Amino acid sequence: MPITLHVVDESGAYGKRDGLAEASALVAKGCKVWIDAVGHDAELQPFLEHELKLHPLLIEDLLEDRPAPKVEDYGAALYIVAHGVALDAKQEICSIEVDIVLTSSWILTHRHGPASAVDSLASELERKPQPLQRGPAFIAHAILDRLVDSYLPIVDEWDDQIDRIEVAVVERATPEVVQQIFKLKRALQALRRGAVHQRELLSRLSRGEFPLVSGDALPFYRDVYDHFLRVTDLSDSYREILSGALDIYLSTVSNRMNEVMKTLTLVATIILPMTFIAGVWGMNFEFMPELHWRYGYLVAWIVMLAVGGGMVAWFKTRKWL
Amino acid sequence: MPITLHVVDESGAYGKRDGLAEASALVAKGCKVWIDAVGHDAELQPFLEHELKLHPLLIEDLLEDRPAPKVEDYGAALYIVAHGVALDAKQEICSIEVDIVLTSSWILTHRHGPASAVDSLASELERKPQPLQRGPAFIAHAILDRLVDSYLPIVDEWDDQIDRIEVAVVERATPEVVQQIFKLKRALQALRRGAVHQRELLSRLSRGEFPLVSGDALPFYRDVYDHFLRVTDLSDSYREILSGALDIYLSTVSNRMNEVMKTLTLVATIILPMTFIAGVWGMNFEFMPELHWRYGYLVAWIVMLAVGGGMVAWFKTRKWL
Amino acid sequence: MPITLHVVDESGAYGKRDGLAEASALVAKGCKVWIDAVGHDAELQPFLEHELKLHPLLIEDLLEDRPAPKVEDYGAALYIVAHGVALDAKQEICSIEVDIVLTSSWILTHRHGPASAVDSLASELERKPQPLQRGPAFIAHAILDRLVDSYLPIVDEWDDQIDRIEVAVVERATPEVVQQIFKLKRALQALRRGAVHQRELLSRLSRGEFPLVSGDALPFYRDVYDHFLRVTDLSDSYREILSGALDIYLSTVSNRMNEVMKTLTLVATIILPMTFIAGVWGMNFEFMPELHWRYGYLVAWIVMLAVGGGMVAWFKTRKWL
Amino acid sequence: MPITLHVVDESGAYGKRDGLAEASALVAKGCKVWIDAVGHDAELQPFLEHELKLHPLLIEDLLEDRPAPKVEDYGAALYIVAHGVALDAKQEICSIEVDIVLTSSWILTHRHGPASAVDSLASELERKPQPLQRGPAFIAHAILDRLVDSYLPIVDEWDDQIDRIEVAVVERATPEVVQQIFKLKRALQALRRGAVHQRELLSRLSRGEFPLVSGDALPFYRDVYDHFLRVTDLSDSYREILSGALDIYLSTVSNRMNEVMKTLTLVATIILPMTFIAGVWGMNFEFMPELHWRYGYLVAWIVMLAVGGGMVAWFKTRKWL
Amino acid sequence: MPITLHVVDESGAYGKRDGLAEASALVAKGCKVWIDAVGHDAELQPFLEHELKLHPLLIEDLLEDRPAPKVEDYGAALYIVAHGVALDAKQEICSIEVDIVLTSSWILTHRHGPASAVDSLASELERKPQPLQRGPAFIAHAILDRLVDSYLPIVDEWDDQIDRIEVAVVERATPEVVQQIFKLKRALQALRRGAVHQRELLSRLSRGEFPLVSGDALPFYRDVYDHFLRVTDLSDSYREILSGALDIYLSTVSNRMNEVMKTLTLVATIILPMTFIAGVWGMNFEFMPELHWRYGYLVAWIVMLAVGGGMVAWFKTRKWL
Repeated sequence: MPITLHVVDESGAYGKRDGLAEASALVAKGCKVWIDAVGHDAELQPFLEHELKLHPLLIEDLLEDRPAPKVEDYGAALYIVAHGVALDAKQEICSIEVDIVLTSSWILTHRHGPASAVDSLASELERKPQPLQRGPAFIAHAILDRLVDSYLPIVDEWDDQIDRIEVAVVERATPEVVQQIFKLKRALQALRRGAVHQRELLSRLSRGEFPLVSGDALPFYRDVYDHFLRVTDLSDSYREILSGALDIYLSTVSNRMNEVMKTLTLVATIILPMTFIAGVWGMNFEFMPELHWRYGYLVAWIVMLAVGGGMVAWFKTRKWL
Repeated sequence: MPITLHVVDESGAYGKRDGLAEASALVAKGCKVWIDAVGHDAELQPFLEHELKLHPLLIEDLLEDRPAPKVEDYGAALYIVAHGVALDAKQEICSIEVDIVLTSSWILTHRHGPASAVDSLASELERKPQPLQRGPAFIAHAILDRLVDSYLPIVDEWDDQIDRIEVAVVERATPEVVQQIFKLKRALQALRRGAVHQRELLSRLSRGEFPLVSGDALPFYRDVYDHFLRVTDLSDSYREILSGALDIYLSTVSNRMNEVMKTLTLVATIILPMTFIAGVWGMNFEFMPELHWRYGYLVAWIVMLAVGGGMVAWFKTRKWL
Repeated sequence: MPITLHVVDESGAYGKRDGLAEASALVAKGCKVWIDAVGHDAELQPFLEHELKLHPLLIEDLLEDRPAPKVEDYGAALYIVAHGVALDAKQEICSIEVDIVLTSSWILTHRHGPASAVDSLASELERKPQPLQRGPAFIAHAILDRLVDSYLPIVDEWDDQIDRIEVAVVERATPEVVQQIFKLKRALQALRRGAVHQRELLSRLSRGEFPLVSGDALPFYRDVYDHFLRVTDLSDSYREILSGALDIYLSTVSNRMNEVMKTLTLVATIILPMTFIAGVWGMNFEFMPELHWRYGYLVAWIVMLAVGGGMVAWFKTRKWL
Repeated sequence: MPITLHVVDESGAYGKRDGLAEASALVAKGCKVWIDAVGHDAELQPFLEHELKLHPLLIEDLLEDRPAPKVEDYGAALYIVAHGVALDAKQEICSIEVDIVLTSSWILTHRHGPASAVDSLASELERKPQPLQRGPAFIAHAILDRLVDSYLPIVDEWDDQIDRIEVAVVERATPEVVQQIFKLKRALQALRRGAVHQRELLSRLSRGEFPLVSGDALPFYRDVYDHFLRVTDLSDSYREILSGALDIYLSTVSNRMNEVMKTLTLVATIILPMTFIAGVWGMNFEFMPELHWRYGYLVAWIVMLAVGGGMVAWFKTRKWL
Repeated sequence: MPITLHVVDESGAYGKRDGLAEASALVAKGCKVWIDAVGHDAELQPFLEHELKLHPLLIEDLLEDRPAPKVEDYGAALYIVAHGVALDAKQEICSIEVDIVLTSSWILTHRHGPASAVDSLASELERKPQPLQRGPAFIAHAILDRLVDSYLPIVDEWDDQIDRIEVAVVERATPEVVQQIFKLKRALQALRRGAVHQRELLSRLSRGEFPLVSGDALPFYRDVYDHFLRVTDLSDSYREILSGALDIYLSTVSNRMNEVMKTLTLVATIILPMTFIAGVWGMNFEFMPELHWRYGYLVAWIVMLAVGGGMVAWFKTRKWL
């Protein structure tokens, strides 16, 4: 059922209808109404235009997918676009957009598919209708609160991954670790992109800038802002930690490389001169008197070892060994 | 025809003339007039000076190519320089400048060549004259909207390229990928240069700072601003992704280099000592008793393989292999 | 004992009770009361809710661990979350959170375990009750002052470590130094994360923004702010010094590497051609007239040394040696 | 002649005197006077002090070389220090300082040597005295305009150099290109240093902050500000392009280095094992049965080629070739 | 003598006393008094507390060493902490702190040792008592001016060093140059740390924010601010130049390394195959027909040179040579 009405009448009793049929009448009667719309519905656009008399641009924005969270003041109505996050089938982060139109007597929410933040609130209202009883601003708060909470499991999951990366980077420093670092970095970037606008949006809502969100609702919005600040603070510090981990990885790899190079240098520069000397006495000249000398071979060994040992000694004095 | 007049008279009827002949009379009659001028025209400058009485500096700016988008308030008139983008013959981005002079009764646009944003609006007016009927501020909005929309196909094209680069950088990591990254980076820089000023311009227009753009036009300008913000947000995130891709490329190349170096080290440090030993028994000394020993050759092989195997074992203990 | 009351009655006499039993009565009598609560206590939450009538969100924040320092104005009460630091069992920095609710007549502090900043003040009050006599804002100041002071020993310890690192990086440049640099860098990051919010909090308190902290208390808060600024300034400059030390390390390592490579190049490019020449005259062709020449061997040496010497000379002209 | 008076009397007639003799009288008579002073002059300082009654600090600043552009409001007088640029004998950029004291009736300019911006204006005034007729603020504008224009040929010259560098970096990537990049970078830095303050100065003048520059003069100052913004925007984008060019250079050099290294690895790891095998059969052991076998030599070649080919094949499987 | 009184009485006559004995009386008489205190003095603290009635926190700050320059407004008194610099015995920069308490009738300065900025002013007052005659704000200005001037010789010295470094980095590029760059960079960092706060302090004083520094004193404070801005601008540009010099150094070193590597590759890849071929014909197989061929040796040389020449040719086609 794409459209649901949640109603609290003058007596404070909670009720629920499907479809828009009674919406205008209920609002006119002074009930507190939450209109929860999912996806495109044939009767929705005319209703927004002719019954609620929303601005054409607001309707256009509402029905389309808008990438950035924002809040716009249309006088009698406040238009809020907020994001939650979820993991898709490939375990990648995708953002869940919820559009909210808030007035003093009714609130309209719209999204393109299931959004657990809104769905869970809708099903809880039956048992606990207080938010709607207190007014539309508290429904908006409840939704924003749940949207912000949807970031937490993902941030927690990252926390685990970062702990594993930090251990791995010191112990193994394999290219796989770098792959993981880059992957996590990109996920953080993706989150941060929307988060900048969402933080701005929540900050403005909690500052008492809009008359529709004021008085006793403000501390609740400030609370949501605080929670979201925690998410962005954490993602900032994850970014720093990942940069640090990458630095450690690069430094480890470079140290290892240096050791490898030094070994090559060592072996090659010790052995090459010795090989040369062996080559000299392997020449076939007729007149090479030392070849016929009784201790020639012994001396050859002594010379070769002396050259090799000299190289080693020279390295030691230069502290390369 | 370089100059076209679009007119909506008091009755709301739309008409179109060529040339400036009737312009002053129509404005005086209270018609809503859009003067659309292309390139340099002999009668334009005197008209701007003597009929419209524009500030000499405004006229100078209008007729020349100015690099940066801006908005200037001349009291009765608002001078806007805005940019769109197009691909030139070499498939490189070039910016299309449109200058707008906006007053409460008429609007003047000027550009140096065809600009699809303006041309498409001009040809649509015949069928849908509403923007001009609603007033000059809505013509200005329609042009800005189309200018901003001209960024979208280019940003989409980049999106595809970046996807391909991200795949390529992990799979192949050839220098060609780097060339592509640098090329795209430069294109992004070029776009961002003008975009900073254009965003500022749109933000000021949508903030209600200018009396000529106010009331019911404001939400439309805010909408354009939002669209443009999407463009600049996207180009910012492309920049981050490209930087990330470059980091991955460099890390991949450096890993590969390390492997190559390790192989060289391995082969050279194993083979060089063995070659030296073969060289020793290739010397021609007369008194080398082991040469005459029955199992000398066998022992030589054993010694050489032991040295090589020892090297391999040492590498294994150091985890280089 | 989880809850302690510190009381100064109208006569200025100081007293101390356990538990919340008399709290409401004492506040009603106009005594200055400091309620110091540690951890969760069954009677605390109802007391906060029903006796002190605090906002439900404030109570929730107070009883939970909140990561970021902040100050919130609830009208009659000011809610402050401040951090101190301590070293845990593994000698790593952990932050100590103290929550403060400040009104004109009483002050409530809450923390989850022992916090030396609060405990030392509590035990000093018996001897020197002046802060409580002067009013709750001075108790809050005393706690903030001690929390800020808790940073000093850690900053001093870092100072020593950085001095050692700076010496080590020039003298030895071993990978261990880099490990230390990265470790210290992470500790600094951890400190800076909370410090940004804490500095903001102290700055707001010392600016006279809140009526509950004003007049003669302001210079004292400014003093705490100054102290904390010193801590953050120091940690900023440590970060710069560590970055500099890392640069020096990398530059030293790279210099050393260059020297090693140059040596390898030198030895290899001098010896390899000489070995080749020795190999030539080690061939077994029947008709190699120079082999039978009397001075062949001598000339061979001359040729080989000339080639080696030529290489050295060429290096010298290129300034590689 | 170090001091020249340009005068427009009440009738609007333009005249020119040398020296300061009549200056006070002309100002007193209500003429518009421009006092153009070059270098140090014995009569200048007393005149500034006693006739014009300027603040001692203003006089000190005026007669000395001050490095940074600035504007200072002394109530009745506005003190402006602005910079132009010129190329010195070594084709390096040097800045030309012009000091301006602006009041409602007279204007004083001072510089230490020839400044084409001022000199060209002075010689043009004879033919076109309008700026002085319109008032001192227009003389100040004309000078600032010409100072800003003096940046253009240098920026154009850089444009050419950068185009050449961009081509060179891709095609040749020699160290000379890097030298050029670093040289141009330094020149850009030198320009940017003063430009920050100059932009600030022009921005403040064009904002209508000072009563002495207001009304009909403002659009002209805004125009100068716009021109200067173009210069700084260009120099910013040049900096970005140079950074990009340096990145391309480094990436090209590193690619080339990788290829060189891979070749060395290839040749060395193929040839070294083959050389070892040849060395084995060059040993002089008495009992090496294969040496006496008819097909020994053929088999030796097969073995050696097989080892070399095996190496090549292994490289191919690892995609190093 | 730790405490000196400089007094200008109602008649404008200048006098000087030692010790604090007459201080209160002189201030009460309406004399302009400058109290210059050095180090700790037994009578100082009671005097500050009981006679001047300064705030306890101000006294604490004054007598201790505070690291960061600042200005604090205590209503009737302005508390300024300013820094000068000097070179210590090891030719390293150390900062000289001077604390100033400024009121409308008297001024107090305190420092822990000799400070040439204050000492030179004190000795000049005897000859030129004008600053004290004009009022305490002019004494404060004179001290700040001299403190700022103390930066100049150090900045000049750096200028020379940087010139030498810039030449050295291009000509020699030895590790010693890098050491110098890092050393200078650290000195610049040390200076910048305090300078940020000092610039803020001078900016606030020169903005007319404090009633005690106003009117005719303001241009003088603005002048000091300007001078200090010059110091910080210079140190900023030095930092940029040093970064540039480091980049040039690294690029030079890397170029040199590349050349060295290319040479090694060249020699090794040319000589190794030739050595292999010589090794082949050095084998002792019985049936190697070419060994017995008359032109075998000649052909061997041709083959070896052909292989070497082929390598060189291949390098040339790849532009590595």
